[in-house]
Amino acid sequence: MSVTVVGSIAFDAVRTPFDERERMLGGSAVHFALAASFFTDVRIVGPVGDDFTESEYQVLHARGVDTEDIERVPGGRTFFWRGHYDYDLNVAHTDETQLNVFADFEPKLSPASRDCDVLFLANIQPDLQRGVRRQSPNARFVAMDSMNLWIDTAPDALRATIAEVDCLLLNDAELRMLTGEPSLLRAARAVMRWGPSQVVAKQGEYGAALFAGDGFFALPAFPLETVLDPTGAGDSFAGGFLGYVAAHGGDSPAEDVMRRAMAYGTALASFNVEQFGTERVSSLTGEEITDRVADLRRMTTFADAPVPLRE
Amino acid sequence: MSVTVVGSIAFDAVRTPFDERERMLGGSAVHFALAASFFTDVRIVGPVGDDFTESEYQVLHARGVDTEDIERVPGGRTFFWRGHYDYDLNVAHTDETQLNVFADFEPKLSPASRDCDVLFLANIQPDLQRGVRRQSPNARFVAMDSMNLWIDTAPDALRATIAEVDCLLLNDAELRMLTGEPSLLRAARAVMRWGPSQVVAKQGEYGAALFAGDGFFALPAFPLETVLDPTGAGDSFAGGFLGYVAAHGGDSPAEDVMRRAMAYGTALASFNVEQFGTERVSSLTGEEITDRVADLRRMTTFADAPVPLRE
Repeated sequence: MSVTVVGSIAFDAVRTPFDERERMLGGSAVHFALAASFFTDVRIVGPVGDDFTESEYQVLHARGVDTEDIERVPGGRTFFWRGHYDYDLNVAHTDETQLNVFADFEPKLSPASRDCDVLFLANIQPDLQRGVRRQSPNARFVAMDSMNLWIDTAPDALRATIAEVDCLLLNDAELRMLTGEPSLLRAARAVMRWGPSQVVAKQGEYGAALFAGDGFFALPAFPLETVLDPTGAGDSFAGGFLGYVAAHGGDSPAEDVMRRAMAYGTALASFNVEQFGTERVSSLTGEEITDRVADLRRMTTFADAPVPLRE
Repeated sequence: MSVTVVGSIAFDAVRTPFDERERMLGGSAVHFALAASFFTDVRIVGPVGDDFTESEYQVLHARGVDTEDIERVPGGRTFFWRGHYDYDLNVAHTDETQLNVFADFEPKLSPASRDCDVLFLANIQPDLQRGVRRQSPNARFVAMDSMNLWIDTAPDALRATIAEVDCLLLNDAELRMLTGEPSLLRAARAVMRWGPSQVVAKQGEYGAALFAGDGFFALPAFPLETVLDPTGAGDSFAGGFLGYVAAHGGDSPAEDVMRRAMAYGTALASFNVEQFGTERVSSLTGEEITDRVADLRRMTTFADAPVPLRE
């Protein structure tokens, strides 16, 4: 079983009310890959510049991530994002974006990357996502993320790409924006009519909801006393979620597998935000993940005990 | 087992993107009482004016609510609220508030109302809430709601009142505002240090979370295709929640009882918003409630199936 992820590999500068980092490894594909690496073989596809050094590769290699398809652009510089969060950690404020080598990125998958079981198209321009999806026609399960920028600037390309994947992961506000439906349930059903069999609404500090056919499943975020850096939480969720799906195999994952995948995604996202950048997930153990999923199950379980109700 | 609720009895004018009503029965105590009436005897305490007619009483009596402690002010007019919602149904916009008889309300509980098992102090001025709480010293479980207005204008009175109840129900943003803690977990723990053994964070469309000691439990809102009118959702939640607590008795409800109470609160809130005002809950059946709680349980359950994780 293997997962391929295509997306950004970046250096991030992040400031929160609690602390800051001037330059650290980040990017959607990196956060995804590290999270998924606990479950299955992971290949990461994306461009970097000359400033991407052995110590960055080492973070990925330490988790067993295959970096053969990282495209090193001679003379180029790696994608850079600078942002900050105020006390409302749900809202990222972008202060600076340098696309650098990402501006001319044309994803090319090696035979090994094409031959994945699960493919994740992290948030990049939707035509590029669709191109990648077509390079990997035999992937058993294909999921994608996107963002408001593409809903605004490339809605037709985005919709065409969504039509070719099995699962769309998107922030709940963006799902509403994408479909024009104020009800999240209607929004998810609209997306499923376009093609995907599953939709995951990411809800930040409130957790995530899964829509599949008529089915609905929701989990709260794991409660934390301190969130240090929310950057990458959504991609860490996707990595835990799709890593679990890959580990379980099957063309169309059964609903009980998808629910457990949501729990593993939730766990990985919660670890990601406990420290800056990739710091926490890099030092994570399998036992910590298993324990957190068990905690999450205890926190969301209630017994059935109907009471007599008065008409 | 019985519940007494003290709060507003109102006429509401509500406009949403879907429809509107120019004048309908509302108020926090009314929404609470109707929801709680499925579980236990309910007494409602609050002031009304001459404009409160037999047809309004009839809505309460049809659900068996005891209205003996409704205080009718001769020559007065009933509290009136006019508001609207845009497509973001989580945000109520107040267009007009006429306090009317509510301006001089001094709650006086009859012996029967004082002698309740469970007491709910709906959102009114915190000194009035504390006065009511002291009229009912033997209530086994006392809960209260509040709002940003009192956090801003009467923080000391509010805190003194919170110190004398068992459970605080509050919107999550208001819990942060009240405590100055950006983490909801820290905010809830701060409140518990003031006195309450339990805190419920109401999260609107995202559901609700329960904090009790070190325990945490969360439920999503029931997914609905159409929300017609969110007015009273929080009070309907409180009515289902505390009605269930009252039906189960016990001085300090056990954690499994509180979790089921959260589920019943969630169910009642979801019915409330399906139609305007009290329309849906007035026509609700016990079977519909039981079915929705069972659905909610199915929507939040996942099996435990640890996978081998790669270190």
